Amino acid sequence: MKKISPTSVGVVHTQFMHFDEPLLLESGQVLSQYDLAVQTYGSLNADHSNAVLICHALNASHHVAGVSADHPDEMGWWDNMVGPGKPVDTRIFFVIGVNNLGSCFGSTGPASISPETGQPWGAAFPVVTVEDWVHAQARLADRLGIERFAAVMGGSLGGMQAISWATTCPDRVAHCVAVASTPKLSAQNIGFNEVARRAIITDPAFHGGDYYAHNTVPEHGLSVARMIGHITYLSDDDMAEKFGRTRRQSSASDAYQYGYGVEFEVESYLRYQGEKFSKYFDANTYLLITRALDYFDPARHTGGDLAVALSSASASFLLVSFATDWRFPPSRSREIVEALVKNETPVTYAEIDAPHGHDAFLLDDSRYHAVMKHYFENIAKSLNLEVSVHAYADQQFSAQGTSNLNMINEVIQSDGIKQEISDSLVRQDLLKIAEWIPPTTRVLDLGCGDGALLDYLTRHQNVRGVGVELSDERVQLCVAKNVQVVQQNLEKGLELFDDQRFDTAVLSQTLQSMHHTEHILREMVRVAKVGVVSFPNFGYWPHGWSLLNGRMPVTGQMPYAWYDTPNIHLCTLKDFEDLCRKLHLRIIDRVTYNPSNEVKWLAGWRSTLALYRFTLDH
Amino acid sequence: MKKISPTSVGVVHTQFMHFDEPLLLESGQVLSQYDLAVQTYGSLNADHSNAVLICHALNASHHVAGVSADHPDEMGWWDNMVGPGKPVDTRIFFVIGVNNLGSCFGSTGPASISPETGQPWGAAFPVVTVEDWVHAQARLADRLGIERFAAVMGGSLGGMQAISWATTCPDRVAHCVAVASTPKLSAQNIGFNEVARRAIITDPAFHGGDYYAHNTVPEHGLSVARMIGHITYLSDDDMAEKFGRTRRQSSASDAYQYGYGVEFEVESYLRYQGEKFSKYFDANTYLLITRALDYFDPARHTGGDLAVALSSASASFLLVSFATDWRFPPSRSREIVEALVKNETPVTYAEIDAPHGHDAFLLDDSRYHAVMKHYFENIAKSLNLEVSVHAYADQQFSAQGTSNLNMINEVIQSDGIKQEISDSLVRQDLLKIAEWIPPTTRVLDLGCGDGALLDYLTRHQNVRGVGVELSDERVQLCVAKNVQVVQQNLEKGLELFDDQRFDTAVLSQTLQSMHHTEHILREMVRVAKVGVVSFPNFGYWPHGWSLLNGRMPVTGQMPYAWYDTPNIHLCTLKDFEDLCRKLHLRIIDRVTYNPSNEVKWLAGWRSTLALYRFTLDH
Repeated sequence: MKKISPTSVGVVHTQFMHFDEPLLLESGQVLSQYDLAVQTYGSLNADHSNAVLICHALNASHHVAGVSADHPDEMGWWDNMVGPGKPVDTRIFFVIGVNNLGSCFGSTGPASISPETGQPWGAAFPVVTVEDWVHAQARLADRLGIERFAAVMGGSLGGMQAISWATTCPDRVAHCVAVASTPKLSAQNIGFNEVARRAIITDPAFHGGDYYAHNTVPEHGLSVARMIGHITYLSDDDMAEKFGRTRRQSSASDAYQYGYGVEFEVESYLRYQGEKFSKYFDANTYLLITRALDYFDPARHTGGDLAVALSSASASFLLVSFATDWRFPPSRSREIVEALVKNETPVTYAEIDAPHGHDAFLLDDSRYHAVMKHYFENIAKSLNLEVSVHAYADQQFSAQGTSNLNMINEVIQSDGIKQEISDSLVRQDLLKIAEWIPPTTRVLDLGCGDGALLDYLTRHQNVRGVGVELSDERVQLCVAKNVQVVQQNLEKGLELFDDQRFDTAVLSQTLQSMHHTEHILREMVRVAKVGVVSFPNFGYWPHGWSLLNGRMPVTGQMPYAWYDTPNIHLCTLKDFEDLCRKLHLRIIDRVTYNPSNEVKWLAGWRSTLALYRFTLDH
Repeated sequence: MKKISPTSVGVVHTQFMHFDEPLLLESGQVLSQYDLAVQTYGSLNADHSNAVLICHALNASHHVAGVSADHPDEMGWWDNMVGPGKPVDTRIFFVIGVNNLGSCFGSTGPASISPETGQPWGAAFPVVTVEDWVHAQARLADRLGIERFAAVMGGSLGGMQAISWATTCPDRVAHCVAVASTPKLSAQNIGFNEVARRAIITDPAFHGGDYYAHNTVPEHGLSVARMIGHITYLSDDDMAEKFGRTRRQSSASDAYQYGYGVEFEVESYLRYQGEKFSKYFDANTYLLITRALDYFDPARHTGGDLAVALSSASASFLLVSFATDWRFPPSRSREIVEALVKNETPVTYAEIDAPHGHDAFLLDDSRYHAVMKHYFENIAKSLNLEVSVHAYADQQFSAQGTSNLNMINEVIQSDGIKQEISDSLVRQDLLKIAEWIPPTTRVLDLGCGDGALLDYLTRHQNVRGVGVELSDERVQLCVAKNVQVVQQNLEKGLELFDDQRFDTAVLSQTLQSMHHTEHILREMVRVAKVGVVSFPNFGYWPHGWSLLNGRMPVTGQMPYAWYDTPNIHLCTLKDFEDLCRKLHLRIIDRVTYNPSNEVKWLAGWRSTLALYRFTLDH
């Protein structure tokens, strides 16, 4: 048995739940009865408000965390995410892992015995969809007495299920967490699935799907399918790092074998993975799950409009993608973010620059896990969930109780620190901006930093805000503050945001560091009624004076040397006002400071910082 | 038969050349005799100096251009590249297409009859390598009386052959042109090849490679292999554009079929491509060619040092890659460029931002074709090759003679224009820089523009120069001038260039538009003994005066508005000199201008442009 660490959920038993109410599938077929294999971690609280449903991807199962009693050598596939003190903290949340219908790990699937024939279902097992899975999972939730999940979450195909939950059962999902997911498969995705299916279906051992009766297994086809899949889960760089052109260990000399046997490590690895998979996975399940992937497309019935397709959702969303994921790249997650922002649905989006491709959603990455942890801490806070200290008292690592308590203290302490940060709204320009923003309006904060402004506006003026920020650290700080943030580079424009979705768009001390100055100003008044910018005044008289003395100015507001300053497009008050005229921006308000005192007289010379409020002149 | 355009080589006959001198293969096996299928286009000139060898990729053949007499419905696979008036102009060059050993299009391969057994070779056909192909092709060159090729060229695997030619037969190759190629396969590349091979080998119809005797064809495996290949040839975006999630035409309604038949257009396309391929391509050849790809690695015997592996080459190189090619991405071509620059081998490199993935090397792209055309025009010029007007007089489109003549006139005219540009070295700072550069030295020109400085230095001072430039248009102008240019963004640093490879590195009027100011200055003195920079002097007195009047300066040398200026890191003379001190750069020379007159008195105030020559102070 695997060694169990104090942050593991320990040994877990699988429960099989039988459902004999017929399930009407999307295809029109009916499944008259079925079983679902389930594991749970942590305890359901008294008002049943702390449940988290975890949906699995292609080849995973209900065995999410800890060591399964029936597979003592395997850790759960998301053990680094779920457990005491982990991002989804099982001292707080009651976590459910469920094996999907059609799978081969305990829930009813093609290899199960059909009650009608007494034989394995085989090719007769119906094609199921993501929506069918959600339907079946909803019945499981009913059975467990869970009316509304604190969160439904998953990576890849699991993320699709979470999204489907949020739209088809909006009242039952408080938070939807979709990692490394996509609103629909691309042609390339479908292409790879189709090749995998052809490999299986054209394997003579497949017998049209009824290989159980022939006592054969389409091992070759399934193995090829798995090898293709494996390549798409890893990034090119990651494969280069792991294998490169390293030769297989058994090659004693440097000489090639000049044949088609295993020559390179990567061949050996892929063959091994393919063969191993073909021994434990069911080929019909592979077909079924890849087809469910192909078919998922919530916007299919809304003329391709994803925002309309997601408009029923009332959950808050967390989306995470990984830069090197070429299976479901960040651009696919951004499509979902765009639709949610359009719907004014709360959404936080982190784009993690992890090197491991699609697989990154399963791996340790401190940035990714920090975002998840902060997000779930906020879920716990918003639902007033309490830490259940005795939840694991009966487990074998109960001796570790003290260290568990320490961890809980840490959580509480870090909450205290966060509160402090939120209150530290000291920058003069931010206070003035806050003054300019009417209560209960919608605000877009571009380059929102640690989220201080939005946090302040949310708590004091009941503003609904979205921040945009590029830095990993600052995105984490925003999530920790429960500030909605979208991770992206502002230079790429505000494509994610629809016209006039906001009352105010703020760009605080960022204009001067942007390449596309005109573009961002135009975008601000496209997405919001009113724009607010602040920037250092390059017309401040010591600047000109410094130049006449032969040096680029370095002052308090602009403390950088010319060669490493992030400030690349500098201007004076007159320059900015000229540009506003050119762009038909009508200036509503101007305030100038030096450094934190308001300057009213000779501001063009005497001020170091300028704040403008403007609107588009129609 | 395909309609033949006036720029096609017309109808071409395949010749089969028999070789009965035994060929010793890299594997140690010997091929006692073999045939090569060959097509030629254009005429070999009197001194046999105008021959171009075209090497093919995975599934192509000797049928490069025009309409093959034996396949009247097929155009050659590189017909847009080879023909009268095309980049490889058959009125100038004698072009040879040859089918590789082991292929299934006429040259001896696994499906050929083995002279020993009187049966098809099958599994007994030896594994051949890129080097074996080059060896066989060299014999063909001997047979045709070609001692030295004007160029050996190819795309993808064809590019590998060109590189192998340049290193293994250095005296026989004047120019090596490798498009969308790589110095060796990555783990991901090998992985895809291995999956394809497993699909073929595990197909029961394969019979260990001796399927000819069993009268079977491993169609399923070959089809899967081809489908995988096809996906890797296209970019994700290209597939999205071509297919998206478009449903198969025969689906009358919007409803899914809930099965594993063809549901999406992309499935239909891939299946069709796979099936078509499995009818005409030989499975053993597929194995053999993918293995030749895997095995290619010229640096294998030099401890991984590609520069050493390529050091025997005496050819000039043209490398081209495509931004969306994820099979052999630009980074792989850059490895080759880096090695060649290290060896001081002449190399020009274009990185084309084409959307079509790996397949782009076969497609029309005006930027790509312009680079190829200019490059081959320079080959013709350097070898004093003449246009053979009557070469096609006997062909069916001889009525088009006039338009052919027009095209030749165009070539001559455009030559005239190019000469003019080369002479237009009018910028004052460039003339001074030219003065500072000793004859016959090596110069790196960073941001070399249209190549005017390097062209001037080459023609007047016999300098050996390399330019770096980002813009497509300027790269084309450099190639047209026969200036060696490497297309890349300077912000990415000078990784391609080894320490102290150059005597002088020039950065002319570019420093002020760079983000990584310190980095580029450090890099300049790393790669060269002496650095030369020119930049606009922000200390010019009207600038400070303008600021004191409340406006960012806009002057002759800096004519841009603050919001759209490319000049992002501005400095005065003193500022630059301070930075030099910080970086331990000793200034050897300084010259200042306003605008084209030298300024000696109060230069910090009065000059608009500064030129510095510096070296690293050890």
